[in-house]
Amino acid sequence: MGVLIKNGRIITAIDDFVGDVYCDGTTIAAVGQDIDANSGDEVIDASGQLVFPGGLDPHVHMELPFMGTVSADDFETGTAAGVAGGTTSIIDFVIPARNEDLMEALAAWHDKAGKAVSDYAFHMAVTWWGDKTKEWMRRCVEEEGITSFKTFMAYRGAIGVDDPELIEVMAHAKTLGGLVTVHAEHGDMVVELQNKLFGEGKTGPKYHALSRPPAVEGEATARSLMMSKMTGQPVYIVHVTCKESIDAMIRARMDGVNVYGETCTQYLLLDDSVYDKPDFEGAAYVMSPPIRPKGHQEVLWNALKLGALHTVATDHCPFNQHGQKDRGKDDFRVIPNGAAGIENRMALLYTYGVLEGRLDLHEFVDLTSTRAAKIFGMYPKKGAIRVGADADIVVWDPAASGVISANTHHHNCDRSIFEGFETKGAASHVVVAGRVQYADGDLKVERGAGEFVRRTVG
Amino acid sequence: MGVLIKNGRIITAIDDFVGDVYCDGTTIAAVGQDIDANSGDEVIDASGQLVFPGGLDPHVHMELPFMGTVSADDFETGTAAGVAGGTTSIIDFVIPARNEDLMEALAAWHDKAGKAVSDYAFHMAVTWWGDKTKEWMRRCVEEEGITSFKTFMAYRGAIGVDDPELIEVMAHAKTLGGLVTVHAEHGDMVVELQNKLFGEGKTGPKYHALSRPPAVEGEATARSLMMSKMTGQPVYIVHVTCKESIDAMIRARMDGVNVYGETCTQYLLLDDSVYDKPDFEGAAYVMSPPIRPKGHQEVLWNALKLGALHTVATDHCPFNQHGQKDRGKDDFRVIPNGAAGIENRMALLYTYGVLEGRLDLHEFVDLTSTRAAKIFGMYPKKGAIRVGADADIVVWDPAASGVISANTHHHNCDRSIFEGFETKGAASHVVVAGRVQYADGDLKVERGAGEFVRRTVG
Amino acid sequence: MGVLIKNGRIITAIDDFVGDVYCDGTTIAAVGQDIDANSGDEVIDASGQLVFPGGLDPHVHMELPFMGTVSADDFETGTAAGVAGGTTSIIDFVIPARNEDLMEALAAWHDKAGKAVSDYAFHMAVTWWGDKTKEWMRRCVEEEGITSFKTFMAYRGAIGVDDPELIEVMAHAKTLGGLVTVHAEHGDMVVELQNKLFGEGKTGPKYHALSRPPAVEGEATARSLMMSKMTGQPVYIVHVTCKESIDAMIRARMDGVNVYGETCTQYLLLDDSVYDKPDFEGAAYVMSPPIRPKGHQEVLWNALKLGALHTVATDHCPFNQHGQKDRGKDDFRVIPNGAAGIENRMALLYTYGVLEGRLDLHEFVDLTSTRAAKIFGMYPKKGAIRVGADADIVVWDPAASGVISANTHHHNCDRSIFEGFETKGAASHVVVAGRVQYADGDLKVERGAGEFVRRTVG
Amino acid sequence: MGVLIKNGRIITAIDDFVGDVYCDGTTIAAVGQDIDANSGDEVIDASGQLVFPGGLDPHVHMELPFMGTVSADDFETGTAAGVAGGTTSIIDFVIPARNEDLMEALAAWHDKAGKAVSDYAFHMAVTWWGDKTKEWMRRCVEEEGITSFKTFMAYRGAIGVDDPELIEVMAHAKTLGGLVTVHAEHGDMVVELQNKLFGEGKTGPKYHALSRPPAVEGEATARSLMMSKMTGQPVYIVHVTCKESIDAMIRARMDGVNVYGETCTQYLLLDDSVYDKPDFEGAAYVMSPPIRPKGHQEVLWNALKLGALHTVATDHCPFNQHGQKDRGKDDFRVIPNGAAGIENRMALLYTYGVLEGRLDLHEFVDLTSTRAAKIFGMYPKKGAIRVGADADIVVWDPAASGVISANTHHHNCDRSIFEGFETKGAASHVVVAGRVQYADGDLKVERGAGEFVRRTVG
Repeated sequence: MGVLIKNGRIITAIDDFVGDVYCDGTTIAAVGQDIDANSGDEVIDASGQLVFPGGLDPHVHMELPFMGTVSADDFETGTAAGVAGGTTSIIDFVIPARNEDLMEALAAWHDKAGKAVSDYAFHMAVTWWGDKTKEWMRRCVEEEGITSFKTFMAYRGAIGVDDPELIEVMAHAKTLGGLVTVHAEHGDMVVELQNKLFGEGKTGPKYHALSRPPAVEGEATARSLMMSKMTGQPVYIVHVTCKESIDAMIRARMDGVNVYGETCTQYLLLDDSVYDKPDFEGAAYVMSPPIRPKGHQEVLWNALKLGALHTVATDHCPFNQHGQKDRGKDDFRVIPNGAAGIENRMALLYTYGVLEGRLDLHEFVDLTSTRAAKIFGMYPKKGAIRVGADADIVVWDPAASGVISANTHHHNCDRSIFEGFETKGAASHVVVAGRVQYADGDLKVERGAGEFVRRTVG
Repeated sequence: MGVLIKNGRIITAIDDFVGDVYCDGTTIAAVGQDIDANSGDEVIDASGQLVFPGGLDPHVHMELPFMGTVSADDFETGTAAGVAGGTTSIIDFVIPARNEDLMEALAAWHDKAGKAVSDYAFHMAVTWWGDKTKEWMRRCVEEEGITSFKTFMAYRGAIGVDDPELIEVMAHAKTLGGLVTVHAEHGDMVVELQNKLFGEGKTGPKYHALSRPPAVEGEATARSLMMSKMTGQPVYIVHVTCKESIDAMIRARMDGVNVYGETCTQYLLLDDSVYDKPDFEGAAYVMSPPIRPKGHQEVLWNALKLGALHTVATDHCPFNQHGQKDRGKDDFRVIPNGAAGIENRMALLYTYGVLEGRLDLHEFVDLTSTRAAKIFGMYPKKGAIRVGADADIVVWDPAASGVISANTHHHNCDRSIFEGFETKGAASHVVVAGRVQYADGDLKVERGAGEFVRRTVG
Repeated sequence: MGVLIKNGRIITAIDDFVGDVYCDGTTIAAVGQDIDANSGDEVIDASGQLVFPGGLDPHVHMELPFMGTVSADDFETGTAAGVAGGTTSIIDFVIPARNEDLMEALAAWHDKAGKAVSDYAFHMAVTWWGDKTKEWMRRCVEEEGITSFKTFMAYRGAIGVDDPELIEVMAHAKTLGGLVTVHAEHGDMVVELQNKLFGEGKTGPKYHALSRPPAVEGEATARSLMMSKMTGQPVYIVHVTCKESIDAMIRARMDGVNVYGETCTQYLLLDDSVYDKPDFEGAAYVMSPPIRPKGHQEVLWNALKLGALHTVATDHCPFNQHGQKDRGKDDFRVIPNGAAGIENRMALLYTYGVLEGRLDLHEFVDLTSTRAAKIFGMYPKKGAIRVGADADIVVWDPAASGVISANTHHHNCDRSIFEGFETKGAASHVVVAGRVQYADGDLKVERGAGEFVRRTVG
Repeated sequence: MGVLIKNGRIITAIDDFVGDVYCDGTTIAAVGQDIDANSGDEVIDASGQLVFPGGLDPHVHMELPFMGTVSADDFETGTAAGVAGGTTSIIDFVIPARNEDLMEALAAWHDKAGKAVSDYAFHMAVTWWGDKTKEWMRRCVEEEGITSFKTFMAYRGAIGVDDPELIEVMAHAKTLGGLVTVHAEHGDMVVELQNKLFGEGKTGPKYHALSRPPAVEGEATARSLMMSKMTGQPVYIVHVTCKESIDAMIRARMDGVNVYGETCTQYLLLDDSVYDKPDFEGAAYVMSPPIRPKGHQEVLWNALKLGALHTVATDHCPFNQHGQKDRGKDDFRVIPNGAAGIENRMALLYTYGVLEGRLDLHEFVDLTSTRAAKIFGMYPKKGAIRVGADADIVVWDPAASGVISANTHHHNCDRSIFEGFETKGAASHVVVAGRVQYADGDLKVERGAGEFVRRTVG
């Protein structure tokens, strides 16, 4: 009893042809023309529709304990929202507290993630450097199927690392063959600016953005790239938002540095006027880095086209306005940082990227799925439509249209940062591990059906 | 009676797997595991070898009348040399004289090209703007299967166009959907410098390079990109050699300009010390643009990695030292411009790109074949290993090694600009249109077997 | 009977001290402390005021025949307006028609300029290249006291030169030691865009700006700098308006090119929203290059501070809305290009430069007077307060304030592009050639009192 | 009994004229034509010679305790060597140990400096941030005549500060109006590289350079400029050596950051081939930052011309090969960092700057004297030839020539990093505080004649 997708226009990162895809068990068993259904097979008529590899979001935080609360989507609701939007796998971050045993944190994350409805992998955040850190890093790569490490240049004293620690992480990752991912903001400067602004009586959400200006991100990006050059360790800069960072990344590439860049949907589509919304609504957009002034968005689109950016993620990490964001009613410094987005990523990038002529369909697939799978060692299990690949497939109806709203999204969050955004094109069917989990607006996922994806280095 | 390639490591622009490829007639009939040979099939054991799509060289000039002589490889010998090196299709340039009927020139080129041993396509050079030029351009795209136009910013008065003409070409190509390719050098400045140097008694080959410095190329590149931006017409810059051009292309991309870039093997691997060779040997390296000073080569490699350059071609256009190059014994200005390279491209890029860690295998395939096929509308007929694609395939022995020499190359030329270069890896077998034309050093090509590849836009 | 300025705060490009200046005849006879007046001397109490060298505007066009009409200020009214604003000398441009004898044009300009109320020099525009051009250029430098040449990269077929001509001008200027100034716009691209826009029915003033976008200026700037590098001839780019040009100039400087840059008051202070004014009022701002979008102004201010720009001029060239600008009511292409500004330059730069903290007082003096005098070979006759220098001096009252208006300015023009701009600081007294010509709002100039300033090369 | 300098060509940062300078007591009493000598005056015939303001070297370290030894020139010998070379005042650095009372360190420096033969000022290094640091900084500016602070981004744990400390220094300097100077190298990365290289058995002087590559300096420069932008505090980057830093400084200027840059003679004239000298001679060139690879020197010259660099200093800090440098015979990490240069600065910049056409005479004066005086609040006491200025004057014989050698220099050091460099032009007479201290090769200085120069802000 397989699933047969008939007569779709199959789009991969490189190919474009009309044909059929047959899923048997959890993998793709055949791709070709004129494949006949067996009895019992579920047949999806994809005529006039596009067929994409399922989306892979390489940057999400489900049920993350952060800033005194926990992000509102757990692994079940978060991955389910992803499926509804065409994203069939995620990479979440294990984030140990400073001085916490990394392996114990990993165990905790495995516990939480067990209820995911689709596949997931982990990045391991190295949040401090101690006697055992090298050994933990080795175990991640060699035993635990985790080949990428996350580092924070902000949040010193909490989950951030200082420069000597970051150098150690890079130098050691180099010996293991893993990839180092970097949250690039000069945390000490941010703290200075936060306190200065707050001290001046500036307490609202917009001062969150003013305390983390582009210069602060661009500087940290450039600094991490210098370390990458000096240690020879490739890096992946997460959630790039601004011209300053893009310029640093291009300079580094032209200096031989092996750097990958990720941006997120919100940085492509929103500008910092969102922080001027009345009634504390700006808090919904409080995230780090913040939404940038007009002008930076076009830089990011151009960087995607040039090849200076490689993936589009979400940094999905929702907090409700009521009960969570409002903790920072009187102090922007304690507003929980983050927002929802995993369900909207593919429709937004299709609408504002492909249909606006900024990206072609292959680039769309590459940016939403294939490239992340390649960079993080999950290809061709993920990111491909070919025999043997996981049967994670999106049938995309280009004639569909919609309007994003917190009233209708599957995110467990009382706000949408894309409220009112019109979208064109939508998943008509989503196949996850060989089963149709979303069809014509009907989401039928299974708690715990997702599996941990073990990765290996090159 | 097909050809079955067994157990090779098949590398495409995106995939990497061990399997078999079965060629039936002129196309690929099957790609997979455990394909059985039919009786009469020729079977190639590719165990331990790599299998690439046949190379596509998008920039060659066979039997080109130029500077009072004709380039020394004709379509037969030139394409044969290509096959020996793993390149199974080319794009040559129809170059009408100023005031010549473009359609008549095309007919002449078809005549010459009929003897090619492998497939070929044409770019049409628009060398002047007259009453009929628009109509000729339309016929190229809509009737003749030629969707790309070449323009020269050098050689004013001969085959060059001035800025108003170039603007017209771009503006009209925009309406047709074709691509405009550009030879970017400020020809008027070159003439000034040539005459100044020659007037100072500087007559040798090295002054060729000094009369066309990087600044002159970079300027023209930037100028053409401004026109591209203003007309909205995508451009493809041929034979990019220097930092100045790369910087201009990156700036343009970041300004939203849709620009593609090509470099050539010689610009990646040689530096301008070649012009210091004694006994007029420097003349072998006289080409336009010239070989650049040390430093520019690393810029080009980095640009390939960044994505600012998209293809690696050869500008294959050989002239013999005796009887051709020596026409300029006393005046560098009349040394015929050009050199041979089509046979060496893939081995050089494999040796100095892949094995030096500058490129991965997918990038190698993309740069030597797939990307050009995509940019110029020949994919997936060319550039792909998949069912239905042309059966142009290279079986590559990574254990092979060699030393390039004019004594042994298949180019019809008495010099090699890569004389003495060591190579690692080489084609063990080359399948052209479903027939094995090169096997273990034995080249068996058929005059006239190649066909013209008609292309269409979007 | 001299003029004694007592107790002013004397500001030069480098010094700042309280003292007295004594003018005897047409020159400064003493600078120091406690200078006593002779009987008959006119004494100006400059206590609490600043004393600057008289302003030098290196870019003006008085009674210029252009686009079928003549600019509205003649040498008398234009220089008088300058004096009222603290500018006591100008450099105008002799602009021969294509094929006109440069020496005859010069004679015509001398005729017109004889009625100037303050000193003037000329740049000679080389508008075409013919048999006698070299000789005319030589005569300018060696016999006529004109050491700078103007070239237009726009206006081909009229006063513009093409690239081979421009190269000739630079190469020949190099032998003479003169300076080449450049109007940098890609004229052919402008014509294409003008006709395209007009063909689409876009006839209003705002399309003037859209037909000459920053990319078109930046390209031409870069091109002229390549020629400068190749010929070794220093250049001075007039009326720089945009980031693209500034970036090109910085790159050129860092490549060893000897380039000077000029901007104008309007490019520092206005943005292109002026073209949205109703009732054809946008026509008042039609000039080439046009006023730029927001963002470019800050780039220009930063370039002044860095040292990438060296002078602030006006390109003073007024046309009345009624009877002149309205010739282009239905076609932006024939709106006479130009606006008035000579009277406002110093007050605007003082108000928005010095008082806003963007420039210090020395930079103010340097940008409005000294640097132009040095670049163009008029220092220390002009641009200095020291013994022997011309007695052109401004006594500046920092406590004054005003509002610019066409109702009150001395320009012979029915519009002011700075209408409503508030200014702080103003000339209380202006000494021209040792005579007080402006005092407390009272302008008393003498037709024909100005003299031609002959210049010599280094 | 004054000193009268007759008929010299007086060159200031802006002026150039033939005249006389009369020094009476310690200051200049008259500048003009035809000044008559009084009886008893010492008259210097400067016909055919140039007259410059005495040089000011803003970056020297006399008798500095560093790396377990003390720099070999004390305030007497060091300032004397300066006078012999035309440099008549210096700014040295008070460098407290970590946790040392800044005021006590200042007292110690005053003690040492009392024996200087010419005037001196101090920068105060803020080497740590404690409870009293703000108060000490205030006292420096308001009571001690020290308006500039030095910070080290290298040498963490010793005299270096970390980022939070540097931010505090900038933020507090902002309130005081002082200037922050920065030694920009990423110290933690340097330590990592040092240990890695040493661990690989690489112990010689050349590894000093390889452990502090340009990327490490460029990064720190950019980081400090981000802090400057965020705090609004102007900074002065000391001893800039490389393209990476210059690019960062230009970007910062174009982003509105108020940054000054200093380079040193050795970075303009030497390349890193010096580290290949045999027999540990490379140790003579061990300094931080190190001498750079070929290519960077031209960048620095161009930056001087553009205005991105403002001063040329020496970082004079000699250590003898025998007894000092040889402490690091087996470990480059402990070779004392520094070299001599104060005596050679002006002759080298004149020879290789002015005479090579890279700088004009005004730029020479500005870079060696005037600009530093202005930036550090010593103008017009220093850096000027005008009435009232200090009588520190150099009479410069353009016909002189020499060859630099440790055998003949006045530095107390057994090596010269400019050994064998030819120079053209030399001081024939140097007037210090109104007394002729150097005449025709005869150096007659007086221990303790120099005075501390108190500076004030704004």
